[in-house]
Amino acid sequence: MSKKIKLGLFGFGCVGQGLYNVLNQTEGIKAEILKICIKNADKKRALPAEYFTVEKNEILFNDDINVVVEMIDDAEAAFEIVKTALQNGKAVVTANKKMIADHFVELYELQQQYNVPLLYEASACASIPIIRNLEEYYDNDLLGAVEGIFNGSTNYILTKIFKDNIDFATALKQAQDIGFAETDPTLDVEAYDPKYKLCIILAHTFGLFVKPEEVFNYGIQNLSTFDIQYANEKGYKIKLVAFCRKVDNKIVAGVLPRFIKPENKLYNIENEYNGILVESAFTESQFFAGKGAGSNPTGSAVLSDISALTYNYKYEYKKHNRGAKVELTDNFSVDLYVRYSTANPIDTKLFSKIKESYANTDSAYVVGTINFSDLRKSDLLKRKDINLIVAADSKFEAIQNNVASSKEAVEIC
Amino acid sequence: MSKKIKLGLFGFGCVGQGLYNVLNQTEGIKAEILKICIKNADKKRALPAEYFTVEKNEILFNDDINVVVEMIDDAEAAFEIVKTALQNGKAVVTANKKMIADHFVELYELQQQYNVPLLYEASACASIPIIRNLEEYYDNDLLGAVEGIFNGSTNYILTKIFKDNIDFATALKQAQDIGFAETDPTLDVEAYDPKYKLCIILAHTFGLFVKPEEVFNYGIQNLSTFDIQYANEKGYKIKLVAFCRKVDNKIVAGVLPRFIKPENKLYNIENEYNGILVESAFTESQFFAGKGAGSNPTGSAVLSDISALTYNYKYEYKKHNRGAKVELTDNFSVDLYVRYSTANPIDTKLFSKIKESYANTDSAYVVGTINFSDLRKSDLLKRKDINLIVAADSKFEAIQNNVASSKEAVEIC
Ligand SMILES: NC(=O)c1ccc[n+]([C@@H]2O[C@H](COP(=O)([O-])OP(=O)(O)OC[C@H]3O[C@@H](n4cnc5c(N)ncnc54)[C@H](OP(=O)(O)O)[C@@H]3O)[C@@H](O)[C@H]2O)c1
Ligand SMILES: NC(=O)c1ccc[n+]([C@@H]2O[C@H](COP(=O)([O-])OP(=O)(O)OC[C@H]3O[C@@H](n4cnc5c(N)ncnc54)[C@H](OP(=O)(O)O)[C@@H]3O)[C@@H](O)[C@H]2O)c1
Repeated sequence: MSKKIKLGLFGFGCVGQGLYNVLNQTEGIKAEILKICIKNADKKRALPAEYFTVEKNEILFNDDINVVVEMIDDAEAAFEIVKTALQNGKAVVTANKKMIADHFVELYELQQQYNVPLLYEASACASIPIIRNLEEYYDNDLLGAVEGIFNGSTNYILTKIFKDNIDFATALKQAQDIGFAETDPTLDVEAYDPKYKLCIILAHTFGLFVKPEEVFNYGIQNLSTFDIQYANEKGYKIKLVAFCRKVDNKIVAGVLPRFIKPENKLYNIENEYNGILVESAFTESQFFAGKGAGSNPTGSAVLSDISALTYNYKYEYKKHNRGAKVELTDNFSVDLYVRYSTANPIDTKLFSKIKESYANTDSAYVVGTINFSDLRKSDLLKRKDINLIVAADSKFEAIQNNVASSKEAVEIC
Repeated sequence: MSKKIKLGLFGFGCVGQGLYNVLNQTEGIKAEILKICIKNADKKRALPAEYFTVEKNEILFNDDINVVVEMIDDAEAAFEIVKTALQNGKAVVTANKKMIADHFVELYELQQQYNVPLLYEASACASIPIIRNLEEYYDNDLLGAVEGIFNGSTNYILTKIFKDNIDFATALKQAQDIGFAETDPTLDVEAYDPKYKLCIILAHTFGLFVKPEEVFNYGIQNLSTFDIQYANEKGYKIKLVAFCRKVDNKIVAGVLPRFIKPENKLYNIENEYNGILVESAFTESQFFAGKGAGSNPTGSAVLSDISALTYNYKYEYKKHNRGAKVELTDNFSVDLYVRYSTANPIDTKLFSKIKESYANTDSAYVVGTINFSDLRKSDLLKRKDINLIVAADSKFEAIQNNVASSKEAVEIC
């Protein structure tokens, strides 16, 4: 594409205005905003009215615009916008993880078919350049695992709980007031948002396109003072950790709370920060941390994609395009803390091995090894009196003939 | 350049062989090694003899070779090689921080003059993609500070001391045996190596090309059990920290040991790992960690530069090319722990403020605020019975009329 960037923006909310700020203060990049499409014509805006339109085709069919930046909060409308833009030969930058996760294969194919780039660094952990870093690893078998804190709102809540001793409800309210959490906080708190990001990371780590429905997510909605006390007594923190990992040539993936020890690099990732650990054959362990949400950090990531377009950068998806295909499996074991109300016992046959158990008059817990595929089918997931947290030293091991294989996953911290 | 990469290598030692390994196992990148120039024709090699030559012009004037990879351990010979390669229109990848720091302006000008890229990601903190990340920030005023652990050997030594309770001499011996430290360990231990890397980072952070002689370095050569005990009692670790930071529109920079608290992200960076904190206006604080030395991690960074050449990536040096020029200053204050032998007192007039002092029959220390330019002139630097360590909470403040300005540097951890 020509090095002269003419932008059409969709959305002028948190991220859209962040991009405007960042672009405005960065003289080094020559990119001009020609038009901004928003939803409500009547809303008061910080820019002159002639910038704005509610008619998407004013951008999508404008021959002067060569780059479309999609920053709206409606995944389905976003997909239609992105699709039409790519079909019209426009490069696209987006921050919309849900849209990408829901339509990944179609988006991949559109890029090939129309030979235009779609960049989305801001969609996964905002300011952390994780996708570009993963793109540097060319082959499937070079990466062993990627895991970390992918959601800023829940990490903010957990930080308030562990550092400032605030209870869950108050912490959530604070996060909403500051604007970190969505008005409907389910996407964050029940771990859908980090799951969408994990779907994006799975494609760039293992060449795997999966539907969000295929990936397990369990959030922090059931976190109790009992769980927090348990963690405090052991010197742990609890973090919501998304993980994907190669185990016996298959891929295991999911999002679950996890107990974190002080020597783990995720221990010091606080508030709206995200942190990502990457295990690879040649560089061994790498770690990235940065703001995972917010107007300017996300706008800055969007701008770095726009700037990459000036030197014709595009994702290569080499791990998908070449080599033997890998697949997702739930047939692996994990060590899990299961807390429940003493009045309502759980079926301990679910565990292949029990390592610890405790009960007082109100609450009880078991720490034991469980087959992940049994967990996904279990009715524990529906119970409100139950919480699930991955043990600090949990291995993720393949299960053969119902016996966990002795091959141990390398520890990442 | 054409996407078909034909390589001529200089050096087949630790890094050269690492590159070979990594390239060999990465089918995703099509790059072919045509020739390898080494020093000693008689040394036994892991590859067939026809690969090797001791005649540099067989690579430099070979029209089939379009990329030269320089990985030798002689900075002056390296500069001649790189210069001729660029003059002959060949793209160059190098891992040689000393060569770059010593000849930075010439290397910058050669790139402009001959319009060929020179990439050197491996030269600064090996596997950490720090230079590319800094290149994403386009303007001078967006970055506030970059600091961190830039040297793997000394970090390995410090880790052994603090984790395994081993004394300095034994730890150094171990580092040499494993091959982390140089045979002449002065470059590492006296902090020259991290200073060369800091010179590279100064150019990509603030657009500043400085000679290594201009930048202060003080290593861990005088570390004593007294210092270690002091740190342990406070719950600190000691790390060798390179820093550059904007203070009142000038740049302060140097390498010095520093006391590190547990909540600082550098605290958990152990062994040969490096860690880098980046402060910027839009993304606030970012953190990167990864292996800072070693055959495969460094080879992997070299390969990522080779791969970037396939999409015509080059450094833009935008911060240097545009905007008002900034300059280096030593006129700032820092809080310093100065340990000395009680028998040989120091002149405490050097401190504008003394915060702590202690003496037993053998050793004494003062913690106080000192003007960095006085420190650089001071004969404390020559004394073997003295050690200098930056205080854990030290500010870096501009000095106006001998009064430290009240503007406090933002804490980075
Ligand atoms: N906020 C973050 O920290 C963050 C971080 C990373 C990624 N993201 C992602 O970035 C995207 C935007 O998030 P946000 O926080 O900026 O959302 P937001 O503050 O709610 O703003 C959404 C914007 O989209 C506009 N919009 C909605 N539907 C539209 C449509 N059909 N056509 C045109 N414009 C439409 C809205 O218009 P009106 O102004 O007229 O209401 C508004 O300007 C989301 O995909 C989000 O997941 C956000
Ligand atoms: N080791 C690391 O972890 C690391 C990390 C980052 C950067 N680096 C940098 O990478 C560079 C190479 O380091 P290294 O550890 O690989 O060194 P090394 O193991 O000592 O190997 C040096 C190689 O250079 C060759 N050589 C020396 N002078 C030469 C000349 N004039 N012409 C042709 N070949 C010559 C040697 O040839 P012979 O084989 O014939 O002796 C040898 O193959 C250095 O600049 C170093 O600072 C190293």
